[in-house]
Amino acid sequence: MEALDYHAKERRKAEFDVQEMKIVWAGSRQAYEISDRVARLVASDPVSDFVKVFRKDNRTMLSRKELFTDTLKKVAHAWKRINELRLSEEEGTKLMDFMDQPSFADLQWGMFIPAIKGNGTEEQKAKWLPMAYKVQILGCYAQTELGHGSNVRGLETTATFDPQTDEFVLHSPTLTSSKWWPGGMGKVSTHAVVYARLITDGQDHGVHGFIVQLRSLDDLSPLPGITVGDIGMKFGSGAYNSMDNGVMRFDHVRIPRDQMLMGISQVTREGKDVQSDVPRQLIYGPMVFVRQKIVADASTALSRAVCIATRYSAVRRQFGSQNGGPETQVIDYKTQQSRLFPLLASAYAFRFVGQWLMWLYRDVIQRLQTNDFSTLPEVHACTAGLKSITTSATADGIEECRKLCGGHGYLSSSGLPELFAVYVPACTYEGDNVVMLLQVGRFLMKTVSQLGSGKMPVGTIAYMGRAEHLLQCRCEVERAEDWLKPHVILEAFEARAARMAVACAKNINKFPKQEDGMHFSLDILLLHGPSRKTLSMLQGKDCAAAASLLKLLTSVCVSLCLSSGFAELSADLTEAAVAHCQLIAVSKFIEKLQQDIPGKGVKRQLEILCNVYALSLMHKHIGDFVATGCISPEQGALANEQLRLLYSQVRPNAIALVDAFNHTDHYLGSILGRYDGNVYPKLYEEAWKDPLNETVAPDGLHEYIQPILKQHIRLARL
Amino acid sequence: MEALDYHAKERRKAEFDVQEMKIVWAGSRQAYEISDRVARLVASDPVSDFVKVFRKDNRTMLSRKELFTDTLKKVAHAWKRINELRLSEEEGTKLMDFMDQPSFADLQWGMFIPAIKGNGTEEQKAKWLPMAYKVQILGCYAQTELGHGSNVRGLETTATFDPQTDEFVLHSPTLTSSKWWPGGMGKVSTHAVVYARLITDGQDHGVHGFIVQLRSLDDLSPLPGITVGDIGMKFGSGAYNSMDNGVMRFDHVRIPRDQMLMGISQVTREGKDVQSDVPRQLIYGPMVFVRQKIVADASTALSRAVCIATRYSAVRRQFGSQNGGPETQVIDYKTQQSRLFPLLASAYAFRFVGQWLMWLYRDVIQRLQTNDFSTLPEVHACTAGLKSITTSATADGIEECRKLCGGHGYLSSSGLPELFAVYVPACTYEGDNVVMLLQVGRFLMKTVSQLGSGKMPVGTIAYMGRAEHLLQCRCEVERAEDWLKPHVILEAFEARAARMAVACAKNINKFPKQEDGMHFSLDILLLHGPSRKTLSMLQGKDCAAAASLLKLLTSVCVSLCLSSGFAELSADLTEAAVAHCQLIAVSKFIEKLQQDIPGKGVKRQLEILCNVYALSLMHKHIGDFVATGCISPEQGALANEQLRLLYSQVRPNAIALVDAFNHTDHYLGSILGRYDGNVYPKLYEEAWKDPLNETVAPDGLHEYIQPILKQHIRLARL
Repeated sequence: MEALDYHAKERRKAEFDVQEMKIVWAGSRQAYEISDRVARLVASDPVSDFVKVFRKDNRTMLSRKELFTDTLKKVAHAWKRINELRLSEEEGTKLMDFMDQPSFADLQWGMFIPAIKGNGTEEQKAKWLPMAYKVQILGCYAQTELGHGSNVRGLETTATFDPQTDEFVLHSPTLTSSKWWPGGMGKVSTHAVVYARLITDGQDHGVHGFIVQLRSLDDLSPLPGITVGDIGMKFGSGAYNSMDNGVMRFDHVRIPRDQMLMGISQVTREGKDVQSDVPRQLIYGPMVFVRQKIVADASTALSRAVCIATRYSAVRRQFGSQNGGPETQVIDYKTQQSRLFPLLASAYAFRFVGQWLMWLYRDVIQRLQTNDFSTLPEVHACTAGLKSITTSATADGIEECRKLCGGHGYLSSSGLPELFAVYVPACTYEGDNVVMLLQVGRFLMKTVSQLGSGKMPVGTIAYMGRAEHLLQCRCEVERAEDWLKPHVILEAFEARAARMAVACAKNINKFPKQEDGMHFSLDILLLHGPSRKTLSMLQGKDCAAAASLLKLLTSVCVSLCLSSGFAELSADLTEAAVAHCQLIAVSKFIEKLQQDIPGKGVKRQLEILCNVYALSLMHKHIGDFVATGCISPEQGALANEQLRLLYSQVRPNAIALVDAFNHTDHYLGSILGRYDGNVYPKLYEEAWKDPLNETVAPDGLHEYIQPILKQHIRLARL
Repeated sequence: MEALDYHAKERRKAEFDVQEMKIVWAGSRQAYEISDRVARLVASDPVSDFVKVFRKDNRTMLSRKELFTDTLKKVAHAWKRINELRLSEEEGTKLMDFMDQPSFADLQWGMFIPAIKGNGTEEQKAKWLPMAYKVQILGCYAQTELGHGSNVRGLETTATFDPQTDEFVLHSPTLTSSKWWPGGMGKVSTHAVVYARLITDGQDHGVHGFIVQLRSLDDLSPLPGITVGDIGMKFGSGAYNSMDNGVMRFDHVRIPRDQMLMGISQVTREGKDVQSDVPRQLIYGPMVFVRQKIVADASTALSRAVCIATRYSAVRRQFGSQNGGPETQVIDYKTQQSRLFPLLASAYAFRFVGQWLMWLYRDVIQRLQTNDFSTLPEVHACTAGLKSITTSATADGIEECRKLCGGHGYLSSSGLPELFAVYVPACTYEGDNVVMLLQVGRFLMKTVSQLGSGKMPVGTIAYMGRAEHLLQCRCEVERAEDWLKPHVILEAFEARAARMAVACAKNINKFPKQEDGMHFSLDILLLHGPSRKTLSMLQGKDCAAAASLLKLLTSVCVSLCLSSGFAELSADLTEAAVAHCQLIAVSKFIEKLQQDIPGKGVKRQLEILCNVYALSLMHKHIGDFVATGCISPEQGALANEQLRLLYSQVRPNAIALVDAFNHTDHYLGSILGRYDGNVYPKLYEEAWKDPLNETVAPDGLHEYIQPILKQHIRLARL
């Protein structure tokens, strides 16, 4: 690939050790080596019957059926390779990641197995997990219903205990109770963990999980009483259409009692619902893990889009040709830099906050083992908030990168349309991003209400302990370069977050207290949590219990809940939440820079990116900073001035900074983003592969075009 | 359709006459009647061979080839109906609009014919137009090249005059000179207006237009020397993949001399390049027309997304169930309202500014006829700016509406993914939106530099004549309701725009003057103009002339051009430009309300929407307003408070306000947006139509799944 390299000149400009940066990006030398080895393994997968099974370049041209078959083929091949090469779990997971095609297999490992591990009894784990690990059964996770998304309490599917036969009868009483969306369920899964309301002698015990066989292991035909299929096309071509998201209805389907997941609560032979005393807080471990994964994935997705847009911006030339010389590279235009470089910096910022979340996860696990639940409310709020701001910024950032590629970004071969289509669901699943922010807002209101109570806020909210100072401090910036000081940036972001939170709390308390408030608050709690994945940990309590549990954990400030103001001002609360979460992202980037980072010029580059990230956020949200008096308009102008200087410093390193993501051309899947920059010949080549070019004349020529050319339109003009 | 109506209750809440609002939206009673009649004609098109030719519900499931054939079929049928029904030009155009599928036919009427009309001699028009109107030939517009987008000066295709044979020789000297993107060219067009550099005896006379036959009229096979095909898949499924955007290369293709469009300049038998004295300013008429159409289309596209999201937000319920009652309609949540209602208001705002642009177009035409070119610079800037802000806001708004529909918005059957994919190119074509804003910024700088010169700014920039006042005026708002006064809103927006423009000019002048600036400025001029469509009007001058012409017309302030500051501060300039353009949109909405608007409650609703539009913009850009001291933070908070009250006033009218768009279910193409609100049963029904559900077991079962279920993964865990 290096043979021809149109970016060679750009790469020589780099002022830092790209190899060392790759390790920083990966998180560790070992992580880098595994990821690098497996990525190349997938990219250079041996040709089987003359076709690379892992190829993606034709994906958007495949019909739905062809795409789905292609997915089955890829998964089978991936598992074959994993076996042949005796890959470790980490390597195997990486291989699936680099295969880069959503499939039923994701649910087996991501949802079905964890649900059983989290909620099954020892006997149930011993029975089901080996079959799942050996892929003798294919499992999915059936929670969401056609009429019920986040509101778990609203699920309608019933599992009624029949003491006569010692069985549960699963039933879909209404159309809206049809299971809808579960991945893998549409065409493939043989089994599912199904969430349904447990009914014993006429009593509703809320939502529980049940292991249900859906299809015959021989020919995958649905079992009696089960209607199941695919829910149809989704956003884009290729993208998530490789996944068989499913619809399913039960007509009085019977399963033995021991297929209810009874790790946390049991139903006895007599049909009694017995609770265990497993501490509920354990649900938080998996939740933190899932959210740190989502944040890490956001940095990866954004890094792919930024890599494509940056490389193509260096290839693409527009205007500025002087006396017949070459035109100017678009990456040299300030308008391009001011849109692209903040996204480049964001990819790094999300990477580091994701790495920090991995540390936080380990910390939470340790604490849970010693029954230390003190940090959970703060952990819950900061992980919910980071999930929200990183996924939203990434979805928007991918589309911005597409626009930054001009017209060619609209071609499927740019890779950007599919990247966008496959990524955007992240803003909705695992807790809608707006709802996540309301969770954070609620936590902020609680924290504010406790100020002065002597209880010191901890972790990412610790700065609130200095609220008194932050509410009246004045920014010391006098010259543009003052904005390069980490403590100056940090204080500005802290002051902004603190002032917006306090202002919200004050406004909320102006509103009358009323019953509605309480309902709303409970709803929000359920709305947020449990998330789809973590609900599997929550089963075994009726939802009122779940509510009160979560209420406890998320430290709802009742006086605020009781105020109708919370609902009225929910839009303002989300803005205060964003301010708090952006502060976290900025502060974790700054903390990262306090570590010792080896490699020539590496730390310097990260310092520049950290400043770009912080100051571009400040510019974007300048209203928050100025309106709250954290900084003056003049100081805002100085920040903007400094930002322009920083862009000039990023420019020579831009290509090397995206090289550091270490994406293979296979994984990137973009002609515009090719490592060698050989864009135009390959675009030209690619065009001819479209099915429309198989024949010179289009199908339908005789029926539809020739008659037109021969007819005479009566109109003088159309 | 009215038989079952889940929205009946919502519709009864309306506080205004929906029928009258439909007429306001359409622009006139007559426009409403034509549009309504033709829309229903398409929606209820008679069944031919048991399939509705105009159906769109299966579009995203079609393979590229099937989709393209479907397009040929639709166009042929459309023309058949236009003939049978002897539709007028206006009706015929509407029918094509409501067919709602991009096709080669768009280029025939939108580009090929206008190019000949604008640039042909009388003889050329007499020869070619009748054939084009009767569709005996199918034409497209071949300007853009693989390596050259907006920069017309960079086009590489050559047309060399051969005096021996009295012919032009068209040739593509490089790969990057391949024509790339022209719609209709890929598989269908028999002819094209091709833009190429005119070369006569070794001299380059710049870009001119030539009529070239591409394909045989019998079997559409490409003529000798022509390589032509489709450029491949684009964003999304369905969407623009119905269009055969093409790639084409010439290998010394000869055409007779009289196929160069010679309306404005000619090449004589001896190969001399002779200029005519047609006033260049005439190019502005078509340009204004094209841009007003783009703005009108933006309001239509946004209205479709808003209609879908609003109706589904009334159907969808989440949480808030009290003692077992129904859950709360999501449209009742403030977070939903604060995202949805500003988009609803924007759709109306864009509608009215589009209607005003139609007036402006007529005004410009009249002036051009009397050689009055005085308003052109201002017209040029305001149309460029409105194109930019309306298309950007619409693209973002459609995606926001999709997110507002939760998970189901991700389904193709919601109609939103395809609407987004088919719309986003509007941000790039006809002048990239950022480049358009730089044009506006340049005009603002020019205007500022002339302040005090005695020359009074006119039209949409007239407020700059009061700069002195606007730079020091203070907002008088003391209570939230003060923000309901139009003159208060107007002055705040004027002050913001004036102050940002003046601040930019001051900063620019701080930078040293240098040659580069001039190059940059010329480039920008060419970059902006001529737009693809209007270039057809511009042919017949070498580009230096074009540059100086456009330079003249756009009144470039040379002192500013010469400053490197223009390039350095281009990002700031775009922000000042946005402020100016948003002011125009707000002021035209306010002006609309000064007209007499019949119909019970209609005007009242529009006043509410106008305030929502203005105050939500203010909230979004609060930094501009506060940092420039136009309003105080407290006044900003009052605006926000007023905004919440306005949302409550919109709420009961929301469904009726989207009904007023008068979209048929066929045109809307969304199950979530169905007029009758019968969403869930139809979603369920739709799912089974997916090709994946044709068979119970998926293709590939035996090859790929059964082996997996039988194999034993060696790993203890993957």
